[in-house]
Amino acid sequence: VNGHQRTGEFERIARYFAPLAAGHSGAFGLEDDAAVLRPGPGNEFVVTTDTLVAGVHYIGDEAPGSIARKLLRVNLSDLAAMGARPVAYTLNVALPHDIGDDWLAAFAGGLAADQKTYGITLVGGDSVATPGPATLTVAAYGEVAEGGALRRSGAGPGDAVYVSGTIGDGALGLKALRGELSGVDTAGIEALVERYRVPEPRIELGLRLQGIAHAAIDVSDGLIADLGHVAAASSVAVAIESAKVPLAPATAAALEADPGLLQLVLAGGDDYELVFTAAADAADEIAALSADLDLALTAIGRVEEGEGVRALDGTGGEIALEFTGWEHG
Amino acid sequence: VNGHQRTGEFERIARYFAPLAAGHSGAFGLEDDAAVLRPGPGNEFVVTTDTLVAGVHYIGDEAPGSIARKLLRVNLSDLAAMGARPVAYTLNVALPHDIGDDWLAAFAGGLAADQKTYGITLVGGDSVATPGPATLTVAAYGEVAEGGALRRSGAGPGDAVYVSGTIGDGALGLKALRGELSGVDTAGIEALVERYRVPEPRIELGLRLQGIAHAAIDVSDGLIADLGHVAAASSVAVAIESAKVPLAPATAAALEADPGLLQLVLAGGDDYELVFTAAADAADEIAALSADLDLALTAIGRVEEGEGVRALDGTGGEIALEFTGWEHG
Repeated sequence: VNGHQRTGEFERIARYFAPLAAGHSGAFGLEDDAAVLRPGPGNEFVVTTDTLVAGVHYIGDEAPGSIARKLLRVNLSDLAAMGARPVAYTLNVALPHDIGDDWLAAFAGGLAADQKTYGITLVGGDSVATPGPATLTVAAYGEVAEGGALRRSGAGPGDAVYVSGTIGDGALGLKALRGELSGVDTAGIEALVERYRVPEPRIELGLRLQGIAHAAIDVSDGLIADLGHVAAASSVAVAIESAKVPLAPATAAALEADPGLLQLVLAGGDDYELVFTAAADAADEIAALSADLDLALTAIGRVEEGEGVRALDGTGGEIALEFTGWEHG
Repeated sequence: VNGHQRTGEFERIARYFAPLAAGHSGAFGLEDDAAVLRPGPGNEFVVTTDTLVAGVHYIGDEAPGSIARKLLRVNLSDLAAMGARPVAYTLNVALPHDIGDDWLAAFAGGLAADQKTYGITLVGGDSVATPGPATLTVAAYGEVAEGGALRRSGAGPGDAVYVSGTIGDGALGLKALRGELSGVDTAGIEALVERYRVPEPRIELGLRLQGIAHAAIDVSDGLIADLGHVAAASSVAVAIESAKVPLAPATAAALEADPGLLQLVLAGGDDYELVFTAAADAADEIAALSADLDLALTAIGRVEEGEGVRALDGTGGEIALEFTGWEHG
């Protein structure tokens, strides 16, 4: 944390952000030029970073604590996809002048809550002013045993394809926030919106998938697009059966009211579930893991020779995909 | 690199940024959820991050390659201040729609040039769209021997205070760009502007200061403010003799034309020199280091009991400081 701040930014850092760095000696209370980090013996760091822009990646009028938690969690989801245990993060905020102390206090409160939930600590960052929208960047640090990171590139023909939790809720939650979703009751709307606002990174699942998953990725761009990344990195094809894609009750209700929403469910993104491939004979092990974590792990398809991703309907016919990844901004 | 991009952002990453990641196997060609990084045996990471906003931290119409190099170098300067050897960085860009391929190609070219200069490699990042100004974040990774990082907190009474290079050029360069500087010839103006646009992080000096410096910081907020950070972290006072502060010829000429500019020289910031304290009997060793690096290392004052920073004139009187740190935005 240094340079480029208005004098007021030092006070902001001291008041709202330095307390978040108390748990890591290498953060030096955010009072030095840089932080010092060392992975545990036999471990290496997994590093990921994402930027969220107000009005582009979130609406802007969300509760500041929710924005903070989503910012952290989209990064933690990447660590989960690599099978890493989160340990620390840096935070860069570019904030417009109309963001005041109340907003900052609530934002820092959201960070504090998720620091506790995930056992992570702020170790550095920057705070600057911008004439534009709030622009928030987190870089998150996880640890894995050396060489143990899950990759996108290990899928092989014959693998089964699994996905955690339910798919489509995030994209439908955003649609609901825009007032464009019908056929879902109020409780269902609330559940979808909450999934959009505060995703659940599947950290524990990622850790437990080491030795089981051949390839893994988190569903951020959309199930089809993210499976496409796996297919490309692994030089294979992926076929999924759309009827097997796990849906939350509210998402199922929305689909019943408007079957055309299937496209958005398959391609909408913002799910932050893990999709992974594993040997066909790992089914029992994965069922046991699902029970252990109390988290649905659903087989939705298979890996084949070839390239690209196909979604099949109940008769084995290919569903024409209107778009394959969510376009923001 | 994942999530939140428009589809076009994937192409941008593949075309302009992935080639910059070719030198680090843990970057996975920017094609996985995260990068994997491990410090060398016996080393630990030093991590720093800074955000630059167009129109706030740079003017906006600079050559894109210069913007890229300044973005990297302000971060590398923090690593230098910790005595770390730079190894890698992540890059997050939020770019307005009117930034096109020419700009990106030139920006990536600046990164490529400084990757070569400093032996660093891009290992991850994010590319998103913004309706606001370009907002650029780098997190830079360096390595030091475990426990070997230079800190702000080690200054003790009796230490001498040294600064590298010359002070004030960056702030006067910005003033010159605004057409507000007189008494300096064209060559001098160009030299000052270049110092503002593309600072020189003192990496080699930082590495060599291990075992010599008791405390170190880079001059980003301004000489007085940054010495203030050292004084606070070390619970000491610092007194500098303003006549000893080393000046480039163009800066000396500007000061002669307008002695009031001394305030800006002492407090303006953007110098990216290192200021450090060392034992009084280290003078010979520091002189030898200066000769070895072909870099001026000038004794400008001393550490005392107490608190705060004083600047003294030629008669030992205290100079009233109008402001102590540069206010951006």
